[in-house]
Amino acid sequence: MAKLTKRSENYSQWYNELVVQADLAEQSAVRGCMVIKPYGYSIWEKMHDILDKMFKETGHTNAYFPLFIPKSFFSREADHVEGFAKECAVVTHYRLRTNADKTAVEVDPEAKLEEELIVRPTSETIIWNTYRNWVKSYRDLPILVNQWANVVRWEMRTRLFLRTAEFLWQEGHTAHATKEEAMEEADKMVHVYADFVENYLGVPVVIGRKTDSERFAGAEETFCIEALMQDGKALQAGTSHFLAQNFAKAFDVTFLNKENKPEYVWATSWGVSTRLMGALIMAHSDDNGLVLPPHLAPIQVVIVPIYKSDDQLNMISERVHELCAKLKAAGISYKYDDRDTQRPGFKFAEWEMKGVPVRLAIGPNDYENHTWEVARRDTLTKENVSDEGIIDHIKNLLEDIQKNIYKKAYDFRAANTYKVDTWDEFKRIIEEKPGFISAHWDGTAETEAKIKEETKATIRCIPLDAEEEEGVCVYSGKPSKRRVLFAKAY
Amino acid sequence: MAKLTKRSENYSQWYNELVVQADLAEQSAVRGCMVIKPYGYSIWEKMHDILDKMFKETGHTNAYFPLFIPKSFFSREADHVEGFAKECAVVTHYRLRTNADKTAVEVDPEAKLEEELIVRPTSETIIWNTYRNWVKSYRDLPILVNQWANVVRWEMRTRLFLRTAEFLWQEGHTAHATKEEAMEEADKMVHVYADFVENYLGVPVVIGRKTDSERFAGAEETFCIEALMQDGKALQAGTSHFLAQNFAKAFDVTFLNKENKPEYVWATSWGVSTRLMGALIMAHSDDNGLVLPPHLAPIQVVIVPIYKSDDQLNMISERVHELCAKLKAAGISYKYDDRDTQRPGFKFAEWEMKGVPVRLAIGPNDYENHTWEVARRDTLTKENVSDEGIIDHIKNLLEDIQKNIYKKAYDFRAANTYKVDTWDEFKRIIEEKPGFISAHWDGTAETEAKIKEETKATIRCIPLDAEEEEGVCVYSGKPSKRRVLFAKAY
Repeated sequence: MAKLTKRSENYSQWYNELVVQADLAEQSAVRGCMVIKPYGYSIWEKMHDILDKMFKETGHTNAYFPLFIPKSFFSREADHVEGFAKECAVVTHYRLRTNADKTAVEVDPEAKLEEELIVRPTSETIIWNTYRNWVKSYRDLPILVNQWANVVRWEMRTRLFLRTAEFLWQEGHTAHATKEEAMEEADKMVHVYADFVENYLGVPVVIGRKTDSERFAGAEETFCIEALMQDGKALQAGTSHFLAQNFAKAFDVTFLNKENKPEYVWATSWGVSTRLMGALIMAHSDDNGLVLPPHLAPIQVVIVPIYKSDDQLNMISERVHELCAKLKAAGISYKYDDRDTQRPGFKFAEWEMKGVPVRLAIGPNDYENHTWEVARRDTLTKENVSDEGIIDHIKNLLEDIQKNIYKKAYDFRAANTYKVDTWDEFKRIIEEKPGFISAHWDGTAETEAKIKEETKATIRCIPLDAEEEEGVCVYSGKPSKRRVLFAKAY
Repeated sequence: MAKLTKRSENYSQWYNELVVQADLAEQSAVRGCMVIKPYGYSIWEKMHDILDKMFKETGHTNAYFPLFIPKSFFSREADHVEGFAKECAVVTHYRLRTNADKTAVEVDPEAKLEEELIVRPTSETIIWNTYRNWVKSYRDLPILVNQWANVVRWEMRTRLFLRTAEFLWQEGHTAHATKEEAMEEADKMVHVYADFVENYLGVPVVIGRKTDSERFAGAEETFCIEALMQDGKALQAGTSHFLAQNFAKAFDVTFLNKENKPEYVWATSWGVSTRLMGALIMAHSDDNGLVLPPHLAPIQVVIVPIYKSDDQLNMISERVHELCAKLKAAGISYKYDDRDTQRPGFKFAEWEMKGVPVRLAIGPNDYENHTWEVARRDTLTKENVSDEGIIDHIKNLLEDIQKNIYKKAYDFRAANTYKVDTWDEFKRIIEEKPGFISAHWDGTAETEAKIKEETKATIRCIPLDAEEEEGVCVYSGKPSKRRVLFAKAY
């Protein structure tokens, strides 16, 4: 297994190599579309299952809406048209035919669609067109629906997981009778995301609101969670939008309220995607490969036998099988890597690359002494542990690793978040010490744009927990009530 | 809630009405694409979860491949080109733009793709193009991968679940070192499907092989499961293909065997889709609506309170909550329908329409007597059951319903399968008594085509368990070694 480029040498190359070498994903024959490999997909499946449970516990159900959206739908919601939906895959024909000499297929020019179909970049339009028929009275509300789906945005510069033409995601689309209820929902879901990313991915996030210019096209408020990667760049890990009555008006979705008067329905939408895989990788991994938090690792424990003869292997395997039965009973996922085609050193490196949190090794001496060599992926440290009580040891170790990974990321973020009060300092820090900058801003789009132009830093969010304090904008010197969070971002 | 058209009056209309009234799915604004509504999707989710577990228990893992396939890929495998991949959605452009007066979006003519992309109708081509890089040596085999995905086939006549332009499915794609191993895999998976459909959907199936003319384009052997619907038409519920080395040759996928010599890889593919929802509905449901087998029902038990005052409701609800705790502990899914916007009679009809296997009702008298009124959906019978032992009663009842539903479908199939030995009888039966016809066939495509032309019946399969017997073809009079299964089909 080839060594990875070091993070300190070339962070971006390190990331690209890691994604491939850890067997997570690869480029496909289709520009910008990735293949998610079995190991990478098994991590996404864990994310899916945990999030799905959280959505259901908060009252949501899943449904499925069409992949295609009629082109005209994108003209309905004016902001949505302007701000979104430009880089899209467009379906114009519905049939292939065999060519004249029967050697290949070609597009049948006779089979042209009357109206082009757009492969969904997001589904507000088709879903709100559907909700029109679902909602008649206040009794039909709220609608709390989520969809797991693939979406396509024709990105020009793509990177595995972080920015791909096709990606997998979930999109919640809810409908409410009142503004308050919709706002509460949008707020609730950004907190569900924060809970998930912090407690499962082990990545601390800042919960905040987007500025007007960074909001989703069609939203009146966009909540987001922002995480800091090891290279000091921010990554938006999830968003939750309060859409007011914009889509209800565009698609004429009204309900009769308790007083029997028609009103437009209030909406939210919220989503996270396979981009979370990118956040997971970039927040924790090291120069040896992936580092997985135990709460998301498809394999929490890998066991490698060390032997010289078949007899030794049989002896050791028996002990391992006993352990596996106990691991299974304890709900710990494991893999016994008894491949005879690879040597232990190769296996160690491979599972290190794949980020398995705990590695057990057992050789003839360990067998004799009733011990295991226990290595943890996060700190790369090893210890010998008695077979007696090994399950409790592993259980505690997994929780310890989960906490440690989070703490490390938390401390990193703390060390790389700067309170800045002058423009010179702002420019210096954004240049020399990438990270979050907490600074006052005058609230105007002009200032925001100028700061972006001069430094490439954007306002990641206005943190929900930002304290009110009197200050002056770091750029314009105009008065400001609270600090916002700046960073260069993915 | 409107009454359904009776099955005896118009089976096809009954089906269409049921799908909508039971809240399973509806037509969308996009021709041929359906919206799967939350209740319908929750049944599909159960199918997904159970199948996924069965795939994993047989050694498979999930992965994800691109939605789009370059047009040229379809020209690679000659049979695949001829027999498939004609009615496809074709992506030709990748950008929209705002029109001149800024009122709408239009396709940007500048953004034309060099090579058109096809929305996958099935993924053999893109996956085998990917496998080329995954396989170097026999050590890399087998690859046992499955994908859950949406696919698009531009059907002209569509029906909800049975035939839609976009549908959801899983497609397994495996790669093997030997022909025997690949054949074993294809055989194993059709048996997994049969197990699933019989034990969860409660639908008996015939496992068989397809004739040459009914085989999947690119396959050398197609196994299938065939089920009989209540109108006497057959429905193909799943297929498993032995693809030989056809796709390996088309995409140049070779491996070095143990003797270090290059060989082409052997392949299988297998799939089931949301079409299973159609099979589920048509096999069991009645003129009152859906009938769900307990093993697939998202809600196994619904509880309806009957009361005149709030005091009564409170009293009853307390008893119901006690029951719910016990149901939960027993792993039985339930819903307490305490909506105050609908009367009990409405609720009874609604849950009947939605096919919930067991309905409990409780009124003041039941409360006094510590009893429940227990109604079963399959037989529409009711009984009073003491609160003591109610959980065991429900558990047994659910299993009993599952068995009864299967038995009913099994008996129906037995009563509608005819051994036929003359052409006159064949024509009479296919006309008057739709169902399966078990008859001798001479094994030629010509005879098969003529029978189809004259009667619309096709050979559904050559059953795997067909006994060898000497006979003569029902059409041509030529000798035949075994009977095959004919029917009109969905």
